[in-house]
Amino acid sequence: MTTHRFEPTRYWNTIGSHAPALRVSDGDTIITRTIDAHGSDRHGRQVSDRPNPQTGPFYVDGAEPGDTLAVHLARLSPDRPDGFMRDRVAPNVVDPDFVATMPDSHLLIWDIDAAAGIATPREPFPTLGKLALPLDPMIGCFGVAPALGQAISTATSGPHGGNMDYRGFRAGATVYFPVAVEGALFFIGDGHAVQGDGEIVGTGIETSFEVEFTVRVLKGKRTGWPRGENATDIFTVGNARPLDQAVQHATTEMLRWLTTDYGLTFAEASVLLGQCVEYDLGNIYDPAYTMVCRLAKRWLPR
Amino acid sequence: MTTHRFEPTRYWNTIGSHAPALRVSDGDTIITRTIDAHGSDRHGRQVSDRPNPQTGPFYVDGAEPGDTLAVHLARLSPDRPDGFMRDRVAPNVVDPDFVATMPDSHLLIWDIDAAAGIATPREPFPTLGKLALPLDPMIGCFGVAPALGQAISTATSGPHGGNMDYRGFRAGATVYFPVAVEGALFFIGDGHAVQGDGEIVGTGIETSFEVEFTVRVLKGKRTGWPRGENATDIFTVGNARPLDQAVQHATTEMLRWLTTDYGLTFAEASVLLGQCVEYDLGNIYDPAYTMVCRLAKRWLPR
Amino acid sequence: MTTHRFEPTRYWNTIGSHAPALRVSDGDTIITRTIDAHGSDRHGRQVSDRPNPQTGPFYVDGAEPGDTLAVHLARLSPDRPDGFMRDRVAPNVVDPDFVATMPDSHLLIWDIDAAAGIATPREPFPTLGKLALPLDPMIGCFGVAPALGQAISTATSGPHGGNMDYRGFRAGATVYFPVAVEGALFFIGDGHAVQGDGEIVGTGIETSFEVEFTVRVLKGKRTGWPRGENATDIFTVGNARPLDQAVQHATTEMLRWLTTDYGLTFAEASVLLGQCVEYDLGNIYDPAYTMVCRLAKRWLPR
Amino acid sequence: MTTHRFEPTRYWNTIGSHAPALRVSDGDTIITRTIDAHGSDRHGRQVSDRPNPQTGPFYVDGAEPGDTLAVHLARLSPDRPDGFMRDRVAPNVVDPDFVATMPDSHLLIWDIDAAAGIATPREPFPTLGKLALPLDPMIGCFGVAPALGQAISTATSGPHGGNMDYRGFRAGATVYFPVAVEGALFFIGDGHAVQGDGEIVGTGIETSFEVEFTVRVLKGKRTGWPRGENATDIFTVGNARPLDQAVQHATTEMLRWLTTDYGLTFAEASVLLGQCVEYDLGNIYDPAYTMVCRLAKRWLPR
Repeated sequence: MTTHRFEPTRYWNTIGSHAPALRVSDGDTIITRTIDAHGSDRHGRQVSDRPNPQTGPFYVDGAEPGDTLAVHLARLSPDRPDGFMRDRVAPNVVDPDFVATMPDSHLLIWDIDAAAGIATPREPFPTLGKLALPLDPMIGCFGVAPALGQAISTATSGPHGGNMDYRGFRAGATVYFPVAVEGALFFIGDGHAVQGDGEIVGTGIETSFEVEFTVRVLKGKRTGWPRGENATDIFTVGNARPLDQAVQHATTEMLRWLTTDYGLTFAEASVLLGQCVEYDLGNIYDPAYTMVCRLAKRWLPR
Repeated sequence: MTTHRFEPTRYWNTIGSHAPALRVSDGDTIITRTIDAHGSDRHGRQVSDRPNPQTGPFYVDGAEPGDTLAVHLARLSPDRPDGFMRDRVAPNVVDPDFVATMPDSHLLIWDIDAAAGIATPREPFPTLGKLALPLDPMIGCFGVAPALGQAISTATSGPHGGNMDYRGFRAGATVYFPVAVEGALFFIGDGHAVQGDGEIVGTGIETSFEVEFTVRVLKGKRTGWPRGENATDIFTVGNARPLDQAVQHATTEMLRWLTTDYGLTFAEASVLLGQCVEYDLGNIYDPAYTMVCRLAKRWLPR
Repeated sequence: MTTHRFEPTRYWNTIGSHAPALRVSDGDTIITRTIDAHGSDRHGRQVSDRPNPQTGPFYVDGAEPGDTLAVHLARLSPDRPDGFMRDRVAPNVVDPDFVATMPDSHLLIWDIDAAAGIATPREPFPTLGKLALPLDPMIGCFGVAPALGQAISTATSGPHGGNMDYRGFRAGATVYFPVAVEGALFFIGDGHAVQGDGEIVGTGIETSFEVEFTVRVLKGKRTGWPRGENATDIFTVGNARPLDQAVQHATTEMLRWLTTDYGLTFAEASVLLGQCVEYDLGNIYDPAYTMVCRLAKRWLPR
Repeated sequence: MTTHRFEPTRYWNTIGSHAPALRVSDGDTIITRTIDAHGSDRHGRQVSDRPNPQTGPFYVDGAEPGDTLAVHLARLSPDRPDGFMRDRVAPNVVDPDFVATMPDSHLLIWDIDAAAGIATPREPFPTLGKLALPLDPMIGCFGVAPALGQAISTATSGPHGGNMDYRGFRAGATVYFPVAVEGALFFIGDGHAVQGDGEIVGTGIETSFEVEFTVRVLKGKRTGWPRGENATDIFTVGNARPLDQAVQHATTEMLRWLTTDYGLTFAEASVLLGQCVEYDLGNIYDPAYTMVCRLAKRWLPR
């Protein structure tokens, strides 16, 4: 098990079968940096185009189509003292006849105090003043190269992952992606210091990160859509429009997981989900929306 | 302020301008009973047709179109020792090509131990055995008579409320409905002893309740969609298909609330929601789906 | 077979189990009048509230739940020399971020020349001038009382019919509605002198009509969603949101029709639809949208 | 103006910035061949993987981002005597609770008689027998390389075109694509000898084609979504899920076209569409669905 320190020099606006930036082994840990959604690094220098430029790809030895790549997010650390956000909810999350009543949108700068663990707006708000939001760093966009030679825009998402903007992708989570190409080719970027459900203003507090994660190859393990777990829950991720279809993908994937890996009958899996499931909203801003199907581990059989 | 004890003798499968069952005053408390979704009362006798038969309507003196009716749910007590559920997720919440792989659905009986605060299946499951679920009683369907003389099926929902199946409608919550007719005409029914998000098996653990609630008329207060609050959060409820539209209704209503009642600018409301909002999934089984837009009170200006 | 001339004196804004306006026999013909969507009659007098006030209901002797009511539209004649329309597409049919660029909406008056068979705008347009549109009268909203005592707003639609705004509901069409209450209780209104697909400006050219139609009871004939036919085609109607679900309802109903009444195997019905089906867009403005699944009669077995 | 005869030797399952197969000039005509959706050529030999392998890309000199590529489909000739189709409607186009009642799906072979202009099933159907369908050849999947280095699966569609399965893409049509990369990089494939609206069985009658088309570069002409025209109509194409969003894309594009190129005010464009628009359903089978907004040329100002 090696720990790699990798300093990226180029970034990608698609997730696809690009030339590997680094080759690592099953079980290795990578410490690297991500730049913000608009392409600025920790010095505030624009070093890439939009949207959501990705660090990577990381080629993981031994990963082959039909396997699953497990990525454990060990640490997500904002690495510069500021970030930005949009200050108006997106037209697609309000009633159509309400859109014309909304004011224009602006970029707001926030100061990020990593030591204190809070973000505050550079300019105080008229009523909310210097609103102090607790940092809760998360990854907006990551995933593995898709099949068929596709190169998918980092503005959207799919079975390969992508721009899911789910706040559950925070340090401590392990995420499982379906491997579609040799080496898996893992990409990561688009850190948010803070974000509400849905990314409904089109941004979180966008900034650059230092990230540390460990990759493992689960040989012969088939996954249809991204899965994840943390200390208390397991979850599955569906990416599609409308949200109804994202729910269908995530729920189907969870049913497969519960009946295949946990030995539940279909009725048992249905009962557990029927009475105990929770759904979380990821991105509802971009071309594909994200819904997460989540179940507390306390309900799972040992 | 009077406390009324009301024993229902008939029930309604639509929410509409039906003859009042009881006339009460602004601020009064009502203690009454609801029967289960299939029409059985606390003795297990079927006393009404499906779906979701409602107790009421309660005519609240002084309520007029353009007002808001506040209903505080003080107590929701399952009042019989059993309930039922479906044991298969509904076809509309899984991928279309997965539907044909699912087994048939059955009704399962659960024992409800109100003293111990748990529900257990009458027949143990093969793997999960006598799975003990903590009771978390909630109201599946309630609301006020809609405008224009409509009588809306209790299988669906709308601006008037209806079959929303949101687990946040538990004791301690206060819910705000837009009054569309004189007296508001409030209906309540469809108690669930336990339910996961979405009611994805088509039921919670369905049973009869004794309920206690207090009604207040907010004169001249306009509401577009149901709103609510509890000790920690405020929330708004959108009912529609697809979920995307339910999100639009709920988010628009929350923006109106924050800018009108809390004095926030549109940008401030957007920032708070953008970074702090949470969305909950109510019903995703019936003709209209439900999404809830929720914000912690800690973020609101005093 | 009697022909009734019925002059309405009151109108309904819901389709429900209201007191019959006229009782007729199976096979009878009714000649009556409808008023426009805003409630104005052939003299331009406002005699009812919005939306889409209905003439009726007509109680058809012998119709019972489980039967089908066939309504043959023999004649739809605009009966006043003017109508109105909105001059801006609705916010829900354009991209959300395009909405704010649209100008305000206005009502435009059109002159209807029934003899010449054209409608022209009262005020000429700057570029299109006195655009002359051929009249193609159709019924926007009609249907039968739904089950369970529901009274459904004439702004929306469902299995009972309602506000479908399908231009195929013109003279010569026969429409089949599922009977849910004794006497069927048929309603009709909301005539459009002209209308494009979707009613995307929220109106056709709205006016009052003299209408002539014949009702027949198909005993024991079960229908799930409205069906129809004309000289060349058969069609089924799905009402829901999103359009995807309306397509599902209409296609399922067509498959049932082809396999039950025309003796096709499921594969044959699939092949015919797969290679020959046409879909038409009805209303995409109101709470429920409408999609029509249509098949040319030339493909049906004799 | 040169006419190129191009014999493809490799095919693509994504539309992206692949190495040009042939370089042509503005105004040139290309005669080439396409293979069927499963990768078989005119000899029935499988020469490519699924799905929808594309011939090309054709680099058009002078085409740059911000231009529009016009492709005139001059001739689409099935070039082998058979094709295939699926014999069951797809699960996503019927009601979810109807899916489990459907039989399994099979591939059916059809004989294609180009001289007679008909297709007939190799095995007669029990009721429909040797159903003879008139050939109406169309292109299922074509388009230009998208921006940002994306390589988009030929199973889906977007602003660049792709798998739209619109029967209006027949000989005589001219289609306009937004150029996103130098040379435009045009791809074409997935011919259907016959197809109903929606491609609801997941196929048309799939076969190989000889195709002849002419390309032109419209310098500085901006297009947001594919546009097209034929002898009688102009149309715009929206690709998305749900269909509601596809309608929004297509309608917005049409409004831009009418107001920018035809000099109509927004109100005039709204009036024309409101009273005269027709919507056609393209693909409702694949990840993105297609709706077409169509207007007869007779309504356009000269």
